[in-house]
Amino acid sequence: MRKIITISREFGSGGRELGKRLSDALSIPCYDHQIIETVAKNSSLSPEYVEKLSENDITSFYSATIGHSFISPNYAVVQSVQVAVAEHELIKKLASESDCIIVGRAADVVLAEYAPFNIFVCANEKSKIERCCARSTNSADLSDKVIIKKCKEIDKRRKAYYEMYSQNKWGDAVNYDLCINTSGKQIKMLIKPLVEYIKAWRSE
Amino acid sequence: MRKIITISREFGSGGRELGKRLSDALSIPCYDHQIIETVAKNSSLSPEYVEKLSENDITSFYSATIGHSFISPNYAVVQSVQVAVAEHELIKKLASESDCIIVGRAADVVLAEYAPFNIFVCANEKSKIERCCARSTNSADLSDKVIIKKCKEIDKRRKAYYEMYSQNKWGDAVNYDLCINTSGKQIKMLIKPLVEYIKAWRSE
Repeated sequence: MRKIITISREFGSGGRELGKRLSDALSIPCYDHQIIETVAKNSSLSPEYVEKLSENDITSFYSATIGHSFISPNYAVVQSVQVAVAEHELIKKLASESDCIIVGRAADVVLAEYAPFNIFVCANEKSKIERCCARSTNSADLSDKVIIKKCKEIDKRRKAYYEMYSQNKWGDAVNYDLCINTSGKQIKMLIKPLVEYIKAWRSE
Repeated sequence: MRKIITISREFGSGGRELGKRLSDALSIPCYDHQIIETVAKNSSLSPEYVEKLSENDITSFYSATIGHSFISPNYAVVQSVQVAVAEHELIKKLASESDCIIVGRAADVVLAEYAPFNIFVCANEKSKIERCCARSTNSADLSDKVIIKKCKEIDKRRKAYYEMYSQNKWGDAVNYDLCINTSGKQIKMLIKPLVEYIKAWRSE
């Protein structure tokens, strides 16, 4: 049976780390930032700009420019959709080539035909602040309030992106096979039983 | 370390079965319907009436009777709160006596001081219909639409009950340590890795 795993995650919840550690444990590749780099390489856009367009709330571009044009959304919106389409095509290609883990980008919806094991990773605010500070020296200089504001902004964009390409609600437990709360936990401790859980889930 | 586990569950998701099977695997008692029976025994109320009052949306009693009285809610509302208080006292007593699993009744909030492992169990509609029909011959005679309507009504009451006694949102992934989607799965297959997950979670 194919082993396709998707990981949706709140910012600061450790979803990326969980993906990497699962990848090591299962010996299958995990694609996260590489998706942005490959899409950028195949286009004339920089990775930074692709990242900016990725998992963005295109409705925010639209409302920002609607004063200038009542007929069509602006070019950033078009590019944002083009980037999403390119990302989704790449995700499908990667999944068709080998078992893998995909982080973000509505991969659970894009890869539905593979019946992937879909994980949502979340955490409480205290834990998000600790993870952001441990990950980045920039975050360590910010107040807790500013870090949480940033987390919420990014999650708002992720939610809007997801709900552009899906009928489902981002983060709603019934849309995932397992929702993992990493608050106050070392992710490495959870990997072994998680691998066993996924095996048991697939064994039926 | 104490082993207290709470299970919140959507109706038809198999939360009760999961509790029983975890109880067997961990050799600790699981309290579900026994809570109602004990509260009934300690009061002058029948188990059926206590069940009706339990996990009910008392705001529905209130709005139904507000036409008769603008000052106080009716007796059913008072009884509903009294039953909830008695249930919560009993839950605290049970947890103080031994490790245990408590199903429903906002036990994650009531037992917060024990830092329990909190599980939310959910499932998709197809799976809920199958579980309801397998569990009850009455349900087998009902249309899928009627079964889902019943599930939604019960979940609406559970949500209202929970949110009476908690600041949290019922079913919101970040309020639980693990949300388990049982759609199309045999719960017995998931117990062994779940036990391992809980052990790993506690080991820190």
